Amino acid sequence: MSVSDSLPAQLAALQHVLDRMPPVAAMQIRVHDYRDGVLRLQAPLAANVNDKGNAFGGSLASALTLSGWALVTLRLRLAGFDADVYVADSHVRYLSPVYGDLQAEAQADAESDWDGFLATFAQRGKARIGLTARQPGSAGKPAAELSGRFVAFARG
Amino acid sequence: MSVSDSLPAQLAALQHVLDRMPPVAAMQIRVHDYRDGVLRLQAPLAANVNDKGNAFGGSLASALTLSGWALVTLRLRLAGFDADVYVADSHVRYLSPVYGDLQAEAQADAESDWDGFLATFAQRGKARIGLTARQPGSAGKPAAELSGRFVAFARG
Repeated sequence: MSVSDSLPAQLAALQHVLDRMPPVAAMQIRVHDYRDGVLRLQAPLAANVNDKGNAFGGSLASALTLSGWALVTLRLRLAGFDADVYVADSHVRYLSPVYGDLQAEAQADAESDWDGFLATFAQRGKARIGLTARQPGSAGKPAAELSGRFVAFARG
Repeated sequence: MSVSDSLPAQLAALQHVLDRMPPVAAMQIRVHDYRDGVLRLQAPLAANVNDKGNAFGGSLASALTLSGWALVTLRLRLAGFDADVYVADSHVRYLSPVYGDLQAEAQADAESDWDGFLATFAQRGKARIGLTARQPGSAGKPAAELSGRFVAFARG
């Protein structure tokens, strides 16, 4: 994949990386779309169910974490950069049980700035950014919410 | 399984619950032991590897979360209670990449009190407790550390 590929090609490339990670393949996590600054992943409940018949907390944490990872990776690639992206720390609140499919929607925090992040990465080969990822719930409230910091390192 | 079973039978029962959860079975998470207040889980790196050849953050978060879940469930069962145990919130710090098998070691926080937790559960049918779970790293430092609150609800 070239860093100059179009958005659909970039999303397909992200899916390819996810599919090669055994635990992620097992969770059947799919890249859904990227629109208005929000990257969305989805996964079927059946592959992520716990002993109580709702979504396993580890799967929710995984999908939320991966949506953030995918968003940072995508923004770097769309800007022409290839990087290793890690989650540095995260806080997850599990607010209500999830009895449907998993959805993870990641976006930059209000105080985060993609231009500043990319400029720092270009200059230092390393940059951090804070993201929020949500599993939608009912009445417009999230069922689970992750706040996390992600760090990108230039490759090679 | 009876709530009066011995520790080995209780650990086997926990393993049975884990094995019935598809994402956990895929991660091949095993109950290792419970000793001196610490519950230990293990999982092979091969089933939990990311695109960078080290442990996937979501698998680390899952194993750490499950070690806490298993510890709370075990302490309740050893006291004669059957409960649904959920993670309420958690903070995970990813401190260094993990290139070996996953290990998760959960114990009560210093300020947490099992006797108080069990007394509250017996009285109200609901109780919370704070736990810490660690993935060992090098030089005695954790490679990842979870601080989380878990809540138990009486069944039925």
